[in-house]
Amino acid sequence: MKLQLGNEKSVFEAGNLAVKMMKVKKSDASRPPAELLVVAPEAQGRYPVVLFCHGYCTQTSWYSQLLCHISSHGYILVAPKLYQWLVICTKDQTKTASNVTKWLPEGLEACLAEGVKPDLSKTALMGHSRGGRTAFALALGHHHAFKALVGLDPVAGPTPPAWVEPRILSHVPRSLDVGMPVAVVGTGLGSRGKGGGFIPPLAPDGCNHSEFFNESRPPCCYFMAKEYGHCDVLDDEGMGLGMACRSGKGCKGKMRRGVGGVVVSFLHAYLGGDCRILDGVVAAPDVAPILLDPVIYVKE
Amino acid sequence: MKLQLGNEKSVFEAGNLAVKMMKVKKSDASRPPAELLVVAPEAQGRYPVVLFCHGYCTQTSWYSQLLCHISSHGYILVAPKLYQWLVICTKDQTKTASNVTKWLPEGLEACLAEGVKPDLSKTALMGHSRGGRTAFALALGHHHAFKALVGLDPVAGPTPPAWVEPRILSHVPRSLDVGMPVAVVGTGLGSRGKGGGFIPPLAPDGCNHSEFFNESRPPCCYFMAKEYGHCDVLDDEGMGLGMACRSGKGCKGKMRRGVGGVVVSFLHAYLGGDCRILDGVVAAPDVAPILLDPVIYVKE
Repeated sequence: MKLQLGNEKSVFEAGNLAVKMMKVKKSDASRPPAELLVVAPEAQGRYPVVLFCHGYCTQTSWYSQLLCHISSHGYILVAPKLYQWLVICTKDQTKTASNVTKWLPEGLEACLAEGVKPDLSKTALMGHSRGGRTAFALALGHHHAFKALVGLDPVAGPTPPAWVEPRILSHVPRSLDVGMPVAVVGTGLGSRGKGGGFIPPLAPDGCNHSEFFNESRPPCCYFMAKEYGHCDVLDDEGMGLGMACRSGKGCKGKMRRGVGGVVVSFLHAYLGGDCRILDGVVAAPDVAPILLDPVIYVKE
Repeated sequence: MKLQLGNEKSVFEAGNLAVKMMKVKKSDASRPPAELLVVAPEAQGRYPVVLFCHGYCTQTSWYSQLLCHISSHGYILVAPKLYQWLVICTKDQTKTASNVTKWLPEGLEACLAEGVKPDLSKTALMGHSRGGRTAFALALGHHHAFKALVGLDPVAGPTPPAWVEPRILSHVPRSLDVGMPVAVVGTGLGSRGKGGGFIPPLAPDGCNHSEFFNESRPPCCYFMAKEYGHCDVLDDEGMGLGMACRSGKGCKGKMRRGVGGVVVSFLHAYLGGDCRILDGVVAAPDVAPILLDPVIYVKE
């Protein structure tokens, strides 16, 4: 991983590494417990790993641009297929993600090109929307497998139903002890409905990014993409889902780069051990291609 | 004000000063804009002032023990009557509190015993329940009149209705810029209903202490009285209201002293300019007579 020190803007552009995207089926020789989308740098090397949990009613492939952006900065992304279309039981989903976590040491390397190695001592967890909730649930049960946790506009109920276990949010500040640094990225429009309130918001107040941040323990960071909506981080292909939620007026490419850059700066800090770019972004969020407001970093 | 340094326990006991409690009617020569309950030390001296906003469906007199506890540590408490019984328009309530704020410099001294003087350069604002919301609303409009703000189990909707302006909570971390240090005291049982859910909670998740703290800017402190309910800080006389909400099993006197002590430590810090007792309580919350968990102090 090449650190571009003193140039925080670089994390918001595609990285120096060409990347390769692969689908790995359950029938593959590596026997993954779920179908996977794997995105990895092409150049030989040893790279930290990010397990990514997609959202409800989305496909892993709809995140390809975001995942490629992160990977091009020196990370291997592994995105299991967690939902059957419109099946809402998130217990199964957390179980599947847990099985993939256990499989990583036995199977991941075999899926990668020769000379491309996963450094599983540096593994992070990330999820979007209901997948953000899954990532927090998984972190609670796998303290030791992960070094950092990222929630992208995470949602924990009430739509789809919130009765599933484990209950993640308790509405008590700093009560969610996942035992690792946390970054939460919110969207300003995710808590707004559409069609004059006829379509409810996908990330309603009280169970969205704001509450996840409130309940997280330091070190934790918070970034709000104020002018964008809940699904604006998806590829344009996935924006059909955007019919169901409020979308920002700005360029979606900028949103993907903005969120990707924030994630890379956080991963560099807590997997790479170098906080300088993260500190720089927090100190001057206007280096990002999108409006990040507020930006909060609670170190202890 | 006598600082009891190195003895954080002292703030949880009655202070050294005898206090006097007075009702001041609107017909009084000092012409207050609302009926007031005033609690002040008897000994001659100059004391910081706390304007207290009571909750919905409560009487100012139901807080007498809490107010006396705080006053005995060297503060003058002024509690206007803000609600007519069961009238829920909080706009009027904020307006009344605002009128009392403006009246303090002209009228308060005349209500006090000879030689007892208010130091209005050191005035704090405090409120309980819906009165906590009123206190935040008032702070937004009177940055310069107050030096510190305390919310005791503050609630901003949805019961009674939340449509009243100004809207206080936005569900964005650190978005509530009152321009002064904030302390939030929550209760662990305030967000629970009663009678198997038949009676809804008075301080429901999403618009209670936790969210007020999340939206407050540093410096801000948070203390949760984990084993007590929303009305347990009232005098026993006021506990008739306790029929409507979940109450803790512990001694209510301990709750009043616990909350009173937390408030005194915060006032000593931000009106008195000495943070040592507050730092001590935060470092070792078990000096309090009640379980405070979590305790959080974000200094910057």
